[in-house]
Amino acid sequence: MTEIVTAGILVIGDEILSGRTKDKNIGFIAEYLTNIGIDLKEVRVVSDDEPDIVAALNALRKRYTYVFTTGGIGPTHDDITADAVAKAFGVKIDHHPEVVARFQERFGDDLNEARLRMARIPDGADLIQSATILAPGFKIDNVIVMAGVPSIMQAMMDIVSPKLKSGLRMLSDTVKANAREGDVGGPLRDIAKAHPDTIIGSYPFMDEQGKPNTNLVVRSRDQDKLNAAMEAVKAMLATINAPK
Amino acid sequence: MTEIVTAGILVIGDEILSGRTKDKNIGFIAEYLTNIGIDLKEVRVVSDDEPDIVAALNALRKRYTYVFTTGGIGPTHDDITADAVAKAFGVKIDHHPEVVARFQERFGDDLNEARLRMARIPDGADLIQSATILAPGFKIDNVIVMAGVPSIMQAMMDIVSPKLKSGLRMLSDTVKANAREGDVGGPLRDIAKAHPDTIIGSYPFMDEQGKPNTNLVVRSRDQDKLNAAMEAVKAMLATINAPK
Repeated sequence: MTEIVTAGILVIGDEILSGRTKDKNIGFIAEYLTNIGIDLKEVRVVSDDEPDIVAALNALRKRYTYVFTTGGIGPTHDDITADAVAKAFGVKIDHHPEVVARFQERFGDDLNEARLRMARIPDGADLIQSATILAPGFKIDNVIVMAGVPSIMQAMMDIVSPKLKSGLRMLSDTVKANAREGDVGGPLRDIAKAHPDTIIGSYPFMDEQGKPNTNLVVRSRDQDKLNAAMEAVKAMLATINAPK
Repeated sequence: MTEIVTAGILVIGDEILSGRTKDKNIGFIAEYLTNIGIDLKEVRVVSDDEPDIVAALNALRKRYTYVFTTGGIGPTHDDITADAVAKAFGVKIDHHPEVVARFQERFGDDLNEARLRMARIPDGADLIQSATILAPGFKIDNVIVMAGVPSIMQAMMDIVSPKLKSGLRMLSDTVKANAREGDVGGPLRDIAKAHPDTIIGSYPFMDEQGKPNTNLVVRSRDQDKLNAAMEAVKAMLATINAPK
C-alpha cells in the first residue's frame, strides 16, 4: 500500500490576524496538495512573534510529512521567518553567498542591509528560486518556507512540488442531493458507517432560487470503494426524492 | 490600564483542508475582533476529527480570553463540533429542550433524528440564536461555537459580541511609502526600535502601473504614541523620496 503523505500549513503574519489582509494562500495550497496526493491535516496562523512561530513550527513539523509556511521573508524588521525557522531547527543562519551574488548583480548600489536580510538562509537549506522570484524561499528538512504574496508563493509551489513525495491521491465525487441537509443526515450516517474506507461529507448551500440544497461528497483513495459508496448515496437520494 | 483581551479562532472542517471550500470566516472574524478591541492571536484549522478538535480547543481556550469556532454544527454525521466541545470541557451533552421545542414548531413531522442533532448542546452553554438562525450556536465558558456558513456565522457574531468584554482598541494608521520595501526596511527598523509601544508593519504591493510600492502601517493602543511613530515614518519617507 502506498504511504499516506500529510502536511500542515503555517501562515505567519500580523496582517492576517488583524484582518487587514485576507489570506488567499490557505485555500490555494489546500487545493494544490489535494491534487498531488498530499493530505492537508492542519493549518495554523500565528503573528510575527518568534516564540510563537518556533512553537507552532516544531509542533507541525514533528506531526506531518511536510510543513508549508507563508509570509515573513521580506526585507523589513517584521520579517523574521527565516530566523525563527533556524531557531526551530537549532541551526545557524547567515547570508547565503549565492543569493548575495544574485542581489549584487540585481541591485548594485541599492543593495542595502534591509535587502540583504532576504539573503539570510538557515544552514543546510535548499533555495527555492527562479529568475522571476526576488527573495528566495527555501526547504529545510521537511519544512518549505515560502513568500506571503500569493503570486510568488504559487510560483514557489510549482518549483518545490516535483521534489515532494506524494501519496495515493484522494479521489472525490460529488452529487447534488436536491434535498435539505436535515433530510439526508440520517441515511447518510448509515451509508458512512457501511463504507468505512470512504469519507462522506455534506455541504448545504442555497440554490439560485434561494431554496436550500445540499452537495454530497464521497472521498476515498480506492476508486471501487468510492463508487460503491456513491451508488449507495444515489440510491438513498432516489428514495428520498421519489414522488410520494 | 485597560486589560488586553485576546482571542483564538478554530475552524473545523475537512472541506477547508481539502481546498473544496475556501474559508471566508477567518478574515471576517479577524477584522470584526480588531474593530471591537479584541486581539486575535492565533488561528487553527482542523479536520472533522474529535481528538484533533478537542486538542486544539483545549490548547486555545487555556491560552486566550476567547475562542471562536466555526463549522460542524449541522445535521449530518460529520457535524461533531458540539460533542467535541462537551468532551473538551468534560461536561455532558443532550438535546436542549428549548431548541427541541422550536424545532418541533418549525419542522413538525419533518423533525427527524438528523435535525435533532442540531439541538444537542453541552450542559451549561448559553444559546446563540435568533428567529433567522436554524441551528443555534452556543457559548460555553470562554468558547463561542458558531456555524460554518458565513452569513449565519456573521449573524451569530452580531448576537454574541455585545456580551464580550473588549479591551483597549488597537488603533491603526497607514501611509503609502511610494518606495520599494527594500528601500524603507533599514530606517523602518530604527523607527520601530525607537517606538517600542507601537507595531510597525510593511506591506508591499504592485500599483496600477505595475510598479512596486509599499504600505506602512503603524499600530498602537495609545494615540499619542501612534502619532509620534507615524510622524517619524513620514519624516523618513520625505528623506527617502527627496529629489537627489
